Amino acid sequence: MTDLSATDAGSVALRSTAEIPVRALPTTDAADAQTPRIPLADPSPAAPEGFQPKAFTGEVIPFRVVAFREGHDVIGVHLRLRTPNKQESLHRLTPLGDGTDRWQVDVALDEPLTWTFRFEAFADEFATWAHAAAVKIAAGVDVDVMRALGAELIQRAAEDTTRPKKQRKHLATIAERLASPEATAADAQAVATDPDLAALFQERPLAALDSATPWRTILVERALAGAAAWYEFFPRSEGAVRTADGTIASGTFATAAERLPAVAAMGFDVVYLPPIHPIGRLNRKGPNNTLTAGPEDPGSPWAVGAAEGGHDAVHPDLGTLADFRAFVETANELGLEVALDLALQAAPDHPWVTQHPEWFTELPDGSIAYAENPPKKYQDIYPLNFDRDPVGLYTEVLRVVEHWISQGVRIFRVDNPHTKPLRFWEWLIRTVNTKHPDVLFLAEAFTRPAPMRGLAAVGFQQSYSYFTWRNTKAELEEFLVSIAHETADYMRPNLFVNTPDILTEYLQFGGRAAYRIRAAIAATAAPLYGVYAGYELYENVARPGSEENLDNEKYEYKLRDWAAAEAEGRSLAPFLTRLNEIRRAHPALRQLRNLRLHWSDDDAVLVYSKHLDRTFTGTGEDDTIIVVANVDPHSVRQTTVHLDTLAWGVEPGAPYEVEDLVTGSVWTWTDHNFVRLDAFTEPVHILHVKGQR
Amino acid sequence: MTDLSATDAGSVALRSTAEIPVRALPTTDAADAQTPRIPLADPSPAAPEGFQPKAFTGEVIPFRVVAFREGHDVIGVHLRLRTPNKQESLHRLTPLGDGTDRWQVDVALDEPLTWTFRFEAFADEFATWAHAAAVKIAAGVDVDVMRALGAELIQRAAEDTTRPKKQRKHLATIAERLASPEATAADAQAVATDPDLAALFQERPLAALDSATPWRTILVERALAGAAAWYEFFPRSEGAVRTADGTIASGTFATAAERLPAVAAMGFDVVYLPPIHPIGRLNRKGPNNTLTAGPEDPGSPWAVGAAEGGHDAVHPDLGTLADFRAFVETANELGLEVALDLALQAAPDHPWVTQHPEWFTELPDGSIAYAENPPKKYQDIYPLNFDRDPVGLYTEVLRVVEHWISQGVRIFRVDNPHTKPLRFWEWLIRTVNTKHPDVLFLAEAFTRPAPMRGLAAVGFQQSYSYFTWRNTKAELEEFLVSIAHETADYMRPNLFVNTPDILTEYLQFGGRAAYRIRAAIAATAAPLYGVYAGYELYENVARPGSEENLDNEKYEYKLRDWAAAEAEGRSLAPFLTRLNEIRRAHPALRQLRNLRLHWSDDDAVLVYSKHLDRTFTGTGEDDTIIVVANVDPHSVRQTTVHLDTLAWGVEPGAPYEVEDLVTGSVWTWTDHNFVRLDAFTEPVHILHVKGQR
Repeated sequence: MTDLSATDAGSVALRSTAEIPVRALPTTDAADAQTPRIPLADPSPAAPEGFQPKAFTGEVIPFRVVAFREGHDVIGVHLRLRTPNKQESLHRLTPLGDGTDRWQVDVALDEPLTWTFRFEAFADEFATWAHAAAVKIAAGVDVDVMRALGAELIQRAAEDTTRPKKQRKHLATIAERLASPEATAADAQAVATDPDLAALFQERPLAALDSATPWRTILVERALAGAAAWYEFFPRSEGAVRTADGTIASGTFATAAERLPAVAAMGFDVVYLPPIHPIGRLNRKGPNNTLTAGPEDPGSPWAVGAAEGGHDAVHPDLGTLADFRAFVETANELGLEVALDLALQAAPDHPWVTQHPEWFTELPDGSIAYAENPPKKYQDIYPLNFDRDPVGLYTEVLRVVEHWISQGVRIFRVDNPHTKPLRFWEWLIRTVNTKHPDVLFLAEAFTRPAPMRGLAAVGFQQSYSYFTWRNTKAELEEFLVSIAHETADYMRPNLFVNTPDILTEYLQFGGRAAYRIRAAIAATAAPLYGVYAGYELYENVARPGSEENLDNEKYEYKLRDWAAAEAEGRSLAPFLTRLNEIRRAHPALRQLRNLRLHWSDDDAVLVYSKHLDRTFTGTGEDDTIIVVANVDPHSVRQTTVHLDTLAWGVEPGAPYEVEDLVTGSVWTWTDHNFVRLDAFTEPVHILHVKGQR
Repeated sequence: MTDLSATDAGSVALRSTAEIPVRALPTTDAADAQTPRIPLADPSPAAPEGFQPKAFTGEVIPFRVVAFREGHDVIGVHLRLRTPNKQESLHRLTPLGDGTDRWQVDVALDEPLTWTFRFEAFADEFATWAHAAAVKIAAGVDVDVMRALGAELIQRAAEDTTRPKKQRKHLATIAERLASPEATAADAQAVATDPDLAALFQERPLAALDSATPWRTILVERALAGAAAWYEFFPRSEGAVRTADGTIASGTFATAAERLPAVAAMGFDVVYLPPIHPIGRLNRKGPNNTLTAGPEDPGSPWAVGAAEGGHDAVHPDLGTLADFRAFVETANELGLEVALDLALQAAPDHPWVTQHPEWFTELPDGSIAYAENPPKKYQDIYPLNFDRDPVGLYTEVLRVVEHWISQGVRIFRVDNPHTKPLRFWEWLIRTVNTKHPDVLFLAEAFTRPAPMRGLAAVGFQQSYSYFTWRNTKAELEEFLVSIAHETADYMRPNLFVNTPDILTEYLQFGGRAAYRIRAAIAATAAPLYGVYAGYELYENVARPGSEENLDNEKYEYKLRDWAAAEAEGRSLAPFLTRLNEIRRAHPALRQLRNLRLHWSDDDAVLVYSKHLDRTFTGTGEDDTIIVVANVDPHSVRQTTVHLDTLAWGVEPGAPYEVEDLVTGSVWTWTDHNFVRLDAFTEPVHILHVKGQR
């Protein structure tokens, strides 16, 4: 569906219905009934009660509403949209025709901030007449009555002074011809079935019984909120070197910046850095999460704070605040944005602990409570207590965030937001975005659906998701439908393929194919995806019994030779680069809600498509991508895929060309196609439908 | 789940949290955040936006809400209910424990009119301490800290002057013991795991971070709105006799009243009469919906109005208004209520047509538009136009309804409400119910889901449903889940097994078994069901190509010999009688929302149960019914049924006795049971679980 002929604000002002006299009804005035004259229900986009739905600039939003009326008369439905600057436009909805009485129009919201919208339904008097007249005149029933009714309607439109003069004259001529006693049944039938006249009244209907939903809002955020490829790396590892005495010297912002051109060359949009602050020395964790750290162990960056400072400070090993700013500048020059970690917790030697004990939970013995999951304790971390001095603590967090914003940061990846009050996040994000609408927050919550959805509803622009744990075809199908069609109005999943915390069994035991499959799906199924450095090198050895990398980078430096790996063909970087190129070349992949599942006969072959109408591609051509993925990393699968080709405007059975955007192969496909997907070579087809109008 | 210890209003007043200082936050005060400190979402019962959910007196309502908090601390959730008389009670919810963060408590609303409710969540400080203390003390961790924390908490409760004196003294003793330096770890562990203390704090928690949803309302209507067995018959057929000249003399209210004792004896609650008004003579329909009626053809009662009067008049053949009142009185004395048809349309000779042409659609040639589905016309009927003089027409309909209310009618079965404006129904039902809250409206709409649900949302107390067209096991499973678990908060389906308009192929070709199967399911799956007279006699011959009875009673008299049929074993009446007895004896069957599907290995054997906790049965015992139905009317099915016996408190594998309430057979069942269901004898088991506490 496409954006149908937006018209200027004044032209479709609501008219009152001529024949309803304005008198009071006895007992109760129907005017206070909830139901509009033409019922309208279930408007969307919609967020959980109390919150507003969101979009990003360029996102194509399906605006939907249920509308119906009694009897057989034809109705029409409009979406009235107001931009943040109060520019109004009107869009005609199309009935889905699936028995749900649901209507839809797709509109791209191309400007940030808050838009308002409502749906308007009306009795479409011309369409009602034209349908009845065509059927009855053909059957020889009521010919004169239909002719007279048509003449009256069209004359009424001709007298509408808000219509263009030329149109009015044209309509008057038709009305006169219809009204003439000499008009034949064939004349009347010609008017009733005239496509030009139908189009004229489609654009500006003869409307009655005007009805409307209340106004609603939708928040539009900048494009990067909804479409971006993320790359995570530890700056201390980049440029770290083993010194003569066997210890490792930390990388710095300066050496880490040397990695940025490669990240940009791979086509990523965002570089996310784990916390860059001083790391606590008290109870510091050693390698592999052991409880005793040696003097050379750098500790976990998430144990924030030490004598050198807390959340507003930079780890001395990395450099100075000025070095950080230089890093950000280099990134920006390469077209990369920098995302900082916001980990609201403190190492025991964080300055907050002594300066603001009221921000922690104090125990009867005067000590501060560690993070714990009784009887387990995490002695390198004090959790914050948001209820003892909320004003003080909220203000301090806001200060920290503003501090980093002033250093050029516009994106925060928030660590474990589900362990802090939802109400706090609602306040923080709204407060920050009121002043800085371009600042984005990604929620790193891996928990039950209700809190994850809650974080998205209260304002997080992006959310980590269950993607890493959805590996079979059945799991992925359910997951993809859920993110694209159940929660997309307010939740934007970022499909990280791995993180320092998550190395799933699928990756541990799936070999290189697993890495390829997961990256291809993440990059094409959702407009937001992410990779944690090392994925390119197929790092797949876990600490026994855990779902984390062995010798985890959280607790030590990682020395990686990217260039050698690539030269020796041991790197996925070329494939990631190609994926990001494909994403940039294909706007259909930078949308979430356009995902559609298709069928295959094999229980490991997942099929989905993403289609974007030419109205929205900016190229004048439709953009359609079909992804066929063998999600079994251990075998070759041969099967038939069955496609609903109407989704990209191809009649069932008709041939069309597809090009594999990875291998360059070109095939002629129809709605049923044989595929052979070899886990050990190319387990995934990313196909572009060629030659679209 | 059961109604947990309602307490008096004052006792659980919301307390403020001591440690949150009342200062203003910078920029934006979190106090205006939508999210309460403990998030609460998705409260139910809930109706479509703008409307209120409904219940009927005695209905057990699952009150549910999503509630969770950050971290591991224990929360509690209360339902605060206010009766229409503002009596407050508090009910503790139980977490469903299925990963949805959903909590539930079941409450029976036992008083009509509007109740208000809200959900309240709180940090449960005692439970949090008791859990942590039990685990940590057992592990030898933080014993003194936990002891001190416990002493502080319990002492705080002891100082709460709203608690009973005796309880305070008891708590003070415990606190003192815990605080004593001589207290051992075992002493502290004993307090942390003391079930009596836990119960004391469960009833009156030590609550912090008090949070609440906004207040919501639920409309409670009288019991018959939600649970009743309906019987439809044409009064003109009852007592109609063939006269010497071969014509038929109409039955009257007096002769029809002679049928009432038999209807009452079958156990029905409501007698529904098709329109009793004068029937139009102009373009009257003849037998089998033919266009020409002979002089003796009585016409369709739905062609309302003639020279003798319109919607407020009685057909002279039936008697007088006084005769009608006598009929109502006889019915009432037999424990039956009378439902009248409200068919808002007019025969061409209805007095409205000449007196109020503005209530119809006038055509350019001065004629009035017939009902039509172009090019088809229905020339015995003029539809009303609700938009030309809404005040006049609305007022007249209200007058008609009030007129019948004054004749003793309290139930209206509304013909084709989906062909009139939804807004009109919202106004009419609210206006009537404001004055007469006991008046009920049943919506006879067979159309798409959106308008059917809309009619229920705007106020109809009951709705016809898709039941007649749901005949296979798969269809019925989907249908039953939909009515019991998707729309039950605002829609009450009345499962008519047949109507004068609907004789499905299942009944036409399914033989006597079909009639038995459908009645058993209708009577046990939903608390509202209905039968149109003739069903008992297995009348199953349709007009060819139609879904209606041949020689349809809508257009002619039906002479039926009920007694002879019964005497000769040709009647389903004894089975219907038994079904209604079972419904009266088993309160579980008078609920809609307690339906639960179970599994069988046969694709024609449908299994469901209805369970009601003893809190609600009024007998002191649980009530559980298991229905196992062979929905294939042409064969014997043998299979195994697999039951979730925990639904009625029986451990999987444990034996229990069930009694077939139709045959009297008693079996010992477990969770897996063999059944043999013979379509030609007893195709349905209606089993009562015996010996429940």
